[in-house]
Amino acid sequence: MTGVGKQGGTILFHSEVSDKAWPIELQKAFPEFRVCTQLSDAVPTDVVAAVVWNPPPGMFEALTGLRLIQVLGAGVDKFLSDDRLPKGVPIARLVDPGLTARMTEYVLMHSLALHRQMPDLQRAQREHRWTFIHPTPPERTCIGILGLGVLGTSCARALTSAGFTVVGWSRSRKEGLDFPSYAGLEELDQFKQQADIIVLLLPLTRETEDLVDESFLATVKSGAALINVGRGKLVVDNALIRALDAGLLRHAILDVFRTEPLPFDHPFWDHPKITITPHNSSATNPATALDQVIVNIRRALAAEPLQHQVDPAHGY
Amino acid sequence: MTGVGKQGGTILFHSEVSDKAWPIELQKAFPEFRVCTQLSDAVPTDVVAAVVWNPPPGMFEALTGLRLIQVLGAGVDKFLSDDRLPKGVPIARLVDPGLTARMTEYVLMHSLALHRQMPDLQRAQREHRWTFIHPTPPERTCIGILGLGVLGTSCARALTSAGFTVVGWSRSRKEGLDFPSYAGLEELDQFKQQADIIVLLLPLTRETEDLVDESFLATVKSGAALINVGRGKLVVDNALIRALDAGLLRHAILDVFRTEPLPFDHPFWDHPKITITPHNSSATNPATALDQVIVNIRRALAAEPLQHQVDPAHGY
Repeated sequence: MTGVGKQGGTILFHSEVSDKAWPIELQKAFPEFRVCTQLSDAVPTDVVAAVVWNPPPGMFEALTGLRLIQVLGAGVDKFLSDDRLPKGVPIARLVDPGLTARMTEYVLMHSLALHRQMPDLQRAQREHRWTFIHPTPPERTCIGILGLGVLGTSCARALTSAGFTVVGWSRSRKEGLDFPSYAGLEELDQFKQQADIIVLLLPLTRETEDLVDESFLATVKSGAALINVGRGKLVVDNALIRALDAGLLRHAILDVFRTEPLPFDHPFWDHPKITITPHNSSATNPATALDQVIVNIRRALAAEPLQHQVDPAHGY
Repeated sequence: MTGVGKQGGTILFHSEVSDKAWPIELQKAFPEFRVCTQLSDAVPTDVVAAVVWNPPPGMFEALTGLRLIQVLGAGVDKFLSDDRLPKGVPIARLVDPGLTARMTEYVLMHSLALHRQMPDLQRAQREHRWTFIHPTPPERTCIGILGLGVLGTSCARALTSAGFTVVGWSRSRKEGLDFPSYAGLEELDQFKQQADIIVLLLPLTRETEDLVDESFLATVKSGAALINVGRGKLVVDNALIRALDAGLLRHAILDVFRTEPLPFDHPFWDHPKITITPHNSSATNPATALDQVIVNIRRALAAEPLQHQVDPAHGY
């Protein structure tokens, strides 16, 4: 049952939602290894690499031979907050063109829907009301993107191409962008004064947790809308509900939540100004991400530097 | 009250939904004419040009000096079906880059929403169900565009850029397209076998009226969706409802209807597989269309050929 040969060992693949092709493709790429999709099928000390999405806390504790944790996504906050994470095992995240493309499509689709006031039109439909709303050009709507990493800059590019006005904000100043951007907490208000739709694409770190709280929402542009595709903990749930009820925000599109799956009795489900998607704004795709995972497993086994290794001090 | 000077006369502007800037801008462009927004304010025989959207039937009957009917949109079926239309007065439609851009955005937005299964996700939200649907790349969804005029080809271009697979169909064969297309009724089935989302952008003519009937819908690709941004009369309402109920179609996005506004008691309003927008997929915009209207008024007064003059024999 254990791995055979010089390069032998086990690659653990754990994800409840990913494409079924992943473990099959990994097994093809690493015929000399055993690919397991259940920890209970593996000899824990044989596991040399773990390719994971949403691993249960403590999953890695018994894996004393582990040389790589490859996360099947861009966000790694959950791993870093697990205090039973083995020390010294490098963690890599994915920068997958497929993941970036799906995220970009999601943000474009919902930006168009908010710009075209689809939530109001759907309310009108429920009430059998024919309410003509004159369509306006996208340049009159400013989309503000919080977080200018690979995903944020890809969204900015697509939204600009679609004709929207775009502004950005990031923790540290970014150069070479072709749209106005702001940096640091001291410039956050300037960003907020312009954004008609705020897109959250920040990593979850000590600095960004609860960023969208009551005071943040009190000073957004009148009637702004929110799209959260970053992390649930960027937003204080009660503050969001109060801002929607008070009319400070007109609508929120939420793909990520403090607890996932979103609990059955959570007030977000029935809120008329909230659209919920089940953390499927994007996902990795073996066709575009497999090579990157294979390269990282090879590099980890050869003790070479990884692609997109996470810096735990920054949190991403 | 009548027009003064050699070029004098009245320009009648009639639209209940257009931008309020239209009559103001027309008056600026034609200071020697009187611009009226109500027929009752004009001397009928003084009206030389009518710029209209949804004119009541018979509106033009008393306008014996009329030299141009400029429609503020791309579709002219309503005019041509009015048997009290004055004979020999040229009718022009608009090919407005703003109108084309708004239509293209609408079709892109709803194609993305159908591709991403937003109707299913909204149903899941109402039931507090967290149902992960793996996002797939847009090239796996084929959008079939019925009608390859200015609007259809613009949509095809945008959908191709967004990564969708596109096929087209038109009455007569089109050359020079960079996507597969079919022509004539005898090739309609080949088109339908490929299209996961069917976009109706046909003009309403004797040939296209009731095209989407029971037999059309019986042979669409399994689980196809429909977007109607052409005309309500392209679709047989009861056949559409039966196809949705039978699961032949998974969803319909409707912007146009046989009767507009859609009557309060129409079964479309409450159908769970129908999304309704109030014929606002697009609209003309003075900023992009004014020059074309001004040019056509000048040409009509000078008895020169018009831009985008309608051929009543073709119906568009």
